[in-house]
This record gives sequence, C-alpha cells and structure tokens, in this order.
Amino acid sequence: MASYKLVYFNVMGLGEPIRFLLSYGGVEFEDIRVNHSSEEWANMKPMTPFGQLPTLEINGKVYSQTLSICRYLAKQFNLLGKTDLDTLQIDAIASALYDFRRLAISSYYRETDPALKAKKKIDVMTRVYPFYLSKLEDLAKNNGGYLHGNQLSYADLFFVAISDSLNTAYESDITEDKPHLKSLKEKVLAHENIKSWIEKRPKLEF
Amino acid sequence: MASYKLVYFNVMGLGEPIRFLLSYGGVEFEDIRVNHSSEEWANMKPMTPFGQLPTLEINGKVYSQTLSICRYLAKQFNLLGKTDLDTLQIDAIASALYDFRRLAISSYYRETDPALKAKKKIDVMTRVYPFYLSKLEDLAKNNGGYLHGNQLSYADLFFVAISDSLNTAYESDITEDKPHLKSLKEKVLAHENIKSWIEKRPKLEF
Repeated sequence: MASYKLVYFNVMGLGEPIRFLLSYGGVEFEDIRVNHSSEEWANMKPMTPFGQLPTLEINGKVYSQTLSICRYLAKQFNLLGKTDLDTLQIDAIASALYDFRRLAISSYYRETDPALKAKKKIDVMTRVYPFYLSKLEDLAKNNGGYLHGNQLSYADLFFVAISDSLNTAYESDITEDKPHLKSLKEKVLAHENIKSWIEKRPKLEF
Repeated sequence: MASYKLVYFNVMGLGEPIRFLLSYGGVEFEDIRVNHSSEEWANMKPMTPFGQLPTLEINGKVYSQTLSICRYLAKQFNLLGKTDLDTLQIDAIASALYDFRRLAISSYYRETDPALKAKKKIDVMTRVYPFYLSKLEDLAKNNGGYLHGNQLSYADLFFVAISDSLNTAYESDITEDKPHLKSLKEKVLAHENIKSWIEKRPKLEF
C-alpha cells in the first residue's frame, strides 16, 4: 500500500480537499502542519517543487499543486467520471471552485490593506459569491444532486472541503438559499469516511 | 472525427496552449476570436460555463477552464506520460506554468494602476521570473531536455505556447541564459504541425 504524507499549513485551505480525498479513499496519511510564520517554513519553501504548499509525498517522492494532486487521488479512488469528457467537465468544475476560493479567500479575505479589502469586499459579496453559487446550484440541480453526471466525483468533495472557509469569508451559510448545494453537502458529509475525518480533524475557521 | 471550436480573445494568452495542442494533434479546429471590449463579449460572458474564455466546443458541447481542456486534449494525443504518477507530475508542471503566466501577465503586465504596476514589476522581475525559470531549467536539464520523463508532454507544449508572452512582459528572451529551455523550445517549434501553426497564426505580441 502506498504511503502518503501531506505537508500544509495549519488551516483547512487548499490542504482540505486533499485530506477529504485521502479520507474518502480510506488510506492512512501523515497530516503535517507547518507554521506559516516559522523559520521552518522559510527554510522549507525553496526546497518545495514550486515554492508552495500543499505538497503530497507519495512513497517518498514529493508532488505539488493542489488540483493536480486531487486529480491523481480522484483517479485512484474512481472519482473522475465515466468517460474522458466526463473527466474534462469534472476537472473544469474543480478548477472553477479553485478560482472561486482564490477570489473569496486568498485575494479578498487575506488582503492586508484595509482600504483595498473594503473595495474587494463589495465585488466579492455582490458579484463573486452570487455568480459562482448560482452556477453551482444549477449544476447540482441538473445533475441529480451532484455537480456532474449524477454521481459523486472529486468536484463534489472539493466543494464541500472548501465550503466552511467560504462560509467564514461570506459571514453566512453559502447553501442557505441553495437547496441542491445544501443537500449535496449533507450527502458528502454523511459518507462514513468523511464523517470520521470531520470528527477527528482540528477545528479551524479556515 | 470530433469537431472542435475554440472561442477566445484575439491574443495568444490562455488560448495558445489549446491551439498548440489541437495543432499538434493534427485536428481541424475553428479559431474564433472575440473582441474583449465588444458588446458581443458582454452578451456572451454570462452564457459561458464560468464567465470566462477560453471555451472549447467539442462536438457541439461547450467546455471551459484552460488546464482542464489542455489535459483532455493531451490524453487524446498521448501527451500525459506513461503512469498516473507521470501524469501527476506533468499536470503539476503545467499548473505551475499557469501560475507563472498569471503572475507575470494577468497580475503584473495587465495592471492598469501605474503605481501598483511599478511595484509589481520589481517583484516579478527580481523574484517571479528568476524563480520559475530556474526551476524549469533544472527540470529540462534533469529530464533529457523535456520538462518531465525524457519525453514530450503537454507541459512542454504549454511552456512554448506561453513563452512569447512571457518574453514580451520580461522585455527580454526568457531562454537567454537557459540552454535547456532554449533547446526544448527549438525542439517543440521544429515539430511539423507546430511549425505549420506558427506560420499561419496571427502575429501578436501576447
């Protein structure tokens, strides 16, 4: 059996979709959490493949880039759909979720300049959130309660894994008026392996 | 045979890696170019899967997200490496190239505020370019003149497809002191189908 070591910061962030996938797959993994402001990270940063975390070590070899890692794990755990065109659509949704998170969290919520943050907040609250949530709700509505193809894919796990951070930045529950997204989240959280992970993971805001 | 219709703006940008892949694969495609400031785009935008171009229509169905489209085409044209772990590494490199382009072009070069652009320029020129170019040169050096696995992958095509834009923003040839990247670029450009594409494509700066 393969050995997995995830290295990320002590937040849900971009590590959480990977933790969800590893948990869903029922494989053991080391969940290393580095302090972002530490000397440890400053020393480690230049040694990572592209200066970033998360990285996932698989049998001793280090891989990077969140979506690439998720897609690899999705393939191992049969979460890429039936055909190559299904995979394309599932990849595109996961990629859009990644963009959504970047705009809402990395760009807006993590902005340190208060004036710039206030300006970004207007755009994020009135355009970004409504736009993506409406597109995602339509997908869930038209795909039998999943984001694609009437069956669970890694795009669904990705959505639920980032949804708590999206709630925090939105200062509200993103699924409130979105019954299909709400039900999708409940379905994913009811999966036995995901449930165990949620119970044992550190309780964090992001 | 599948029918392909690419819709993007009249720049190389994120469309060019897709155009490279379709050309490499030797398939016919419609190369639709929309004016970014036009009413046509304003009307079209809400109808796209996630409010963005490029999109690729495959047999009449519209798909989005540059990297997802590239990966799908790479699979059809056998440019994803030999094993799932090769694919993970190739995906990660393509994803890092996407980040590199975003920082150098979308974030810095397209910045409209002159003061902010000047500030970003310092970071981009002294940190972003040297960092990514050095990582990429090392990969080409250690992988037999390709970015991964001693053979051509879609990451190589992606690199060459964005290299002209990267040159423009850098105000210099990014391969100047990078002999392995220079030789990789020459190899890709010497491929018959890519050569034909370069000859017939519109001549643009980005």
